[in-house]
Amino acid sequence: MSIRHTCLKNDGAARLGRLFTPHGVVETPAFMPVGTVGTVKGIYPFQVEQSGSRILLANTYHLALRPGDERVARLGGLHRFMNWPHAILTDSGGYQVFSLSERRVVTDAGVKFRSHLDGSLIDLTPERAVQIQENLGSDIAMVLDVCPPAGCDHAEMAEAIRRTLLWAKRCQNAATRPDQSLFAIVQGGLDLEARAACAAELVAMDFPGYALGGFSVGESPEAMAQALPACAACLPVEKPRYLMGVGRPQDLIAGMAAGIDMFDCVLPTRNGRNASAYTRTGEVRLRNARHRDDPTPLEEGCPCPCCTGYSRAYLHHLFAAEEMLGPMLLSLHNLWFYQGLMREARQAIEKGAFNAWALEWLVCLEKTP
Amino acid sequence: MSIRHTCLKNDGAARLGRLFTPHGVVETPAFMPVGTVGTVKGIYPFQVEQSGSRILLANTYHLALRPGDERVARLGGLHRFMNWPHAILTDSGGYQVFSLSERRVVTDAGVKFRSHLDGSLIDLTPERAVQIQENLGSDIAMVLDVCPPAGCDHAEMAEAIRRTLLWAKRCQNAATRPDQSLFAIVQGGLDLEARAACAAELVAMDFPGYALGGFSVGESPEAMAQALPACAACLPVEKPRYLMGVGRPQDLIAGMAAGIDMFDCVLPTRNGRNASAYTRTGEVRLRNARHRDDPTPLEEGCPCPCCTGYSRAYLHHLFAAEEMLGPMLLSLHNLWFYQGLMREARQAIEKGAFNAWALEWLVCLEKTP
Repeated sequence: MSIRHTCLKNDGAARLGRLFTPHGVVETPAFMPVGTVGTVKGIYPFQVEQSGSRILLANTYHLALRPGDERVARLGGLHRFMNWPHAILTDSGGYQVFSLSERRVVTDAGVKFRSHLDGSLIDLTPERAVQIQENLGSDIAMVLDVCPPAGCDHAEMAEAIRRTLLWAKRCQNAATRPDQSLFAIVQGGLDLEARAACAAELVAMDFPGYALGGFSVGESPEAMAQALPACAACLPVEKPRYLMGVGRPQDLIAGMAAGIDMFDCVLPTRNGRNASAYTRTGEVRLRNARHRDDPTPLEEGCPCPCCTGYSRAYLHHLFAAEEMLGPMLLSLHNLWFYQGLMREARQAIEKGAFNAWALEWLVCLEKTP
Repeated sequence: MSIRHTCLKNDGAARLGRLFTPHGVVETPAFMPVGTVGTVKGIYPFQVEQSGSRILLANTYHLALRPGDERVARLGGLHRFMNWPHAILTDSGGYQVFSLSERRVVTDAGVKFRSHLDGSLIDLTPERAVQIQENLGSDIAMVLDVCPPAGCDHAEMAEAIRRTLLWAKRCQNAATRPDQSLFAIVQGGLDLEARAACAAELVAMDFPGYALGGFSVGESPEAMAQALPACAACLPVEKPRYLMGVGRPQDLIAGMAAGIDMFDCVLPTRNGRNASAYTRTGEVRLRNARHRDDPTPLEEGCPCPCCTGYSRAYLHHLFAAEEMLGPMLLSLHNLWFYQGLMREARQAIEKGAFNAWALEWLVCLEKTP
């Protein structure tokens, strides 16, 4: 089977839905934790599941370089390799090529770049991007796209969109796995006309899902939030919508308000490793000495394994002593925080109370990183 | 309550028993994982428990320096601080002063040394060592001792034993907590007469338990194994016997054969962090490229969470990518390996088959680090 998405309820533009995948059902709006190289950093798969995650994102670029997509295929695919029984979405590697690789040559054929690991020359074509993702065996694959930086000039954006459309078609033609669904990516930056034109072309190609790329690439969060409703409205209502690489809790709320169904971001785990925790009353930096004698949990009432078992004083001590358990516990809390936010959002949409809920959260989150 | 030890069965010198503590029962012979600063590195407390551990060791020296024993006391004691509901043994800090601190002055009064963290001057007396451990609230505390290196001369050893005896008495006089049991430490290196004399003096003081210190400090494993039976035989049969800082699986077997009830060692977690795994067929180094395509578990038939969920290929990948999950999984496997060894040893003693069991293991372990 490939994926199927049903919308259960609308509340303004916000949508409550279900995404059926070959590896289970995902309630939407959904947040996907990032397991770059086949592991959500510092978190066991069973804990990712316990946090409420039913789909995660893995990075094609990283996995193709190491351990290699053919090796993963021989080992039974990415689900088995990383011991994750639920759904997986892989990106196409395009974004990483444009953000991690210093030397690259982009032509209509594809992207030639040097590995950030060993400097070897790699030729990533649309066909190869699909092949890698078929080898990994993800439930959802992404087309190879060109992701220009924020503030690029009109000609560069037009060229990026032209190639993104060309490559989307070639990816579609290259795809062979019936158990994998290929999502298209809309580019166009903050130019709403360019976004609409790009979306129209991709919608005509009839993909099973659509993503908004090229956000959170340097523009202000406000500019993104303003552009999202119009961008989302260009996408077919019956297909899932994915806002790539976004974002902070505030950005997720803006995205859900605009009708986005799927998100991914490294922030909960990256901030957790750096001793920074999300709470409803703002960011908490556990390295701060004011926690040294604090017997209270990180967040009162939070049901996560970190808050139910440990004090702020202990968490502070773990980071002071550079103990692994500090990053482990804080990454876990942050992931629970994100999934709690999503759960509440779904309940609010269900009740037709999304806007009031969103406003309440946005006030709380003012102090959050 | 303080601790109580009952011997259920003897098989040669090997003993099967139960150690009753204020925080639960420990089946002996028991292995205590090391949670130096209040965390068994990279392992959640519930996982330490699942591995079969019912007692762990924490380091007085490290915890007194950071976060500070008075702070731990204010936070409800070490059990609550680190979220560990079972028994805890704390060492006295003596060993760390002699191994970690460069500048130290030992007099009959105690040890003056500089903190390895910030260079501050610290005065560790027998009374202070007891006070720290009472603040931490461990179930079993250790007397402050002098631990001379292997191969020290006769005069140095005699002086170390004299001070160890003097300090043991002062620790005993200083102890006030009825829910904490203070164990004495026998020194004497490989000099069996010195050991016997030291033990006799300590036995006359009637401690609730006795440890052999000054092993695994530079002498050969064979020399230790030869000395152990005579050393253990100097200790009262009705009290628990603890071999400090030991050791490799082979050393644990030698210790159990000599009638030792308790062990502690950092090897399972330290080796796990360094990609080295214990198996019945010898050491496995997961960084080795020969595991790159190996779909089999680290150890066939091992019931641990690492072996039941992941392949050698995945573990190799985690270490190649420097992902936290690699050290987490391997530390966990190694702890399960150690506790599996202890469980089997207890079953063998129960059946009166310890010697045959030990021989079988020692052959297997020839290739183990």
